[in-house]
Amino acid sequence: MNKSELISQIRRKKSFLCIGLDTEVGKLPAHIAISDDPVFDFNRQIIDATHDLAVAYKPNLAFYESQKSNGWRSLEKTIDYIRRNYPGIFIIADAKRGDIGNTSLQYAKAFLDDEEGLGFDAITVAPYMGQDSVSPYLNYASKWAIVLILTSNKGAADFQYKTMDGGRSLWEHTLETAASWGSPDNMMFVIGATQASMLSRVRQIVPDHFLLVPGVGAQGGNLQEVVRFGLNKEVGLLINVSRSVIFASSGSDFAHRAREEAFKLQQQMQAYIR
Amino acid sequence: MNKSELISQIRRKKSFLCIGLDTEVGKLPAHIAISDDPVFDFNRQIIDATHDLAVAYKPNLAFYESQKSNGWRSLEKTIDYIRRNYPGIFIIADAKRGDIGNTSLQYAKAFLDDEEGLGFDAITVAPYMGQDSVSPYLNYASKWAIVLILTSNKGAADFQYKTMDGGRSLWEHTLETAASWGSPDNMMFVIGATQASMLSRVRQIVPDHFLLVPGVGAQGGNLQEVVRFGLNKEVGLLINVSRSVIFASSGSDFAHRAREEAFKLQQQMQAYIR
Repeated sequence: MNKSELISQIRRKKSFLCIGLDTEVGKLPAHIAISDDPVFDFNRQIIDATHDLAVAYKPNLAFYESQKSNGWRSLEKTIDYIRRNYPGIFIIADAKRGDIGNTSLQYAKAFLDDEEGLGFDAITVAPYMGQDSVSPYLNYASKWAIVLILTSNKGAADFQYKTMDGGRSLWEHTLETAASWGSPDNMMFVIGATQASMLSRVRQIVPDHFLLVPGVGAQGGNLQEVVRFGLNKEVGLLINVSRSVIFASSGSDFAHRAREEAFKLQQQMQAYIR
Repeated sequence: MNKSELISQIRRKKSFLCIGLDTEVGKLPAHIAISDDPVFDFNRQIIDATHDLAVAYKPNLAFYESQKSNGWRSLEKTIDYIRRNYPGIFIIADAKRGDIGNTSLQYAKAFLDDEEGLGFDAITVAPYMGQDSVSPYLNYASKWAIVLILTSNKGAADFQYKTMDGGRSLWEHTLETAASWGSPDNMMFVIGATQASMLSRVRQIVPDHFLLVPGVGAQGGNLQEVVRFGLNKEVGLLINVSRSVIFASSGSDFAHRAREEAFKLQQQMQAYIR
């Protein structure tokens, strides 16, 4: 999906909500946990209940890989289900991959290729190994690399906030450098919402890029703050919420409750979309 | 596998060779490519031909994920095959994962857990997200996190070599910080062999840890240089070679030729093991 298609969808749905499909088997409602493919069945019902409120879904690979090859099959079925029933939704592989060029080529094929791979629209990638670890993802038309810049966990302070020679922080250096590898048409950045005030600095460096913002909800970020500092003229934000939507209830009403939570978020978001 | 078991294996085989199972489907010999599971069949023959010369195998996840869930199944079969036929070999998931704590817990389970996961001995992990992204891997007894520090690709210069406030490079800061999270009994570091002279600095910071050294062979690193600067009193090195061993021939003699290449490396290595 290219940038103008993404923006059209955002304006049509009056939403920039991304729902994180962190489908943890141990948290599934009891009546789902006994099905043949609980992970897929759970995802399917969440998607059916929220597809008009969310513009993107973001399966987190760890929760599928913890079920080994069966988990990868649940993931394949989830992507197929979205593509067949709700075309036009943006799908992000939250995979945080990063490796040397010939290896990244294989990951790019695995996640972005529509014929031979899973056909995601985007993949999250780690920056530590530099340009040749990211550029293979930028060669797929209408696909995206989403580079980790500022994360919302405690460990972000171990490296990301550290000061480089010259006075910039590592995350600023990483953002400036990574932004030079692509364009606002094939690259986004992960900016953790627990650092909302840093968003104004982010917007000085990359005024035009989309930002994927996790950490609203379970990790404590504040939607209003994120919008205040992060919104640009093309919206430019995808706000990800995972656990507080998909695990809003552990009962048989889980999909209905997920919809209620997604609806609350969409209602807050629509005020900001002109 | 704990450290003393690893060292025993190294002394017994007089080898610190790790063979990278970067099993790229497009490079498989023609007679293998038509089997039901070419990736597994190729791996099985490589392993049968080299198990007495190598102390470790390192499947690179990208080459399995490019075959989607079938690739994960080939990977599961490969691990099972090694465990059943050649117990006591160290197996590394070259996955370079890195995410927030609750996600890393899932990756740790997926790759290290002997009951519910793939049961690898070790996994490569990316440092950018800090301590809580790595610590879940350290809680498995006799299992290892192998943290990326210096990589052998061109992009290593984009961030790893950059100077921090205070004069250290980012890789030095990363190594010092990451080493404080674990011990030489549950943590190793990836140090690319194209930077052999940097190994003496690495050894000042972490004299006792094992280092996983890729880049000897196809990426141009030099074994003698690596040993000169990297060897410690417990050997402390795993040298990974991938393509120049497993793709030594694209004909029906591929396994035999892989053994010849592995044998040459083992012969060079045995001189350094007392």
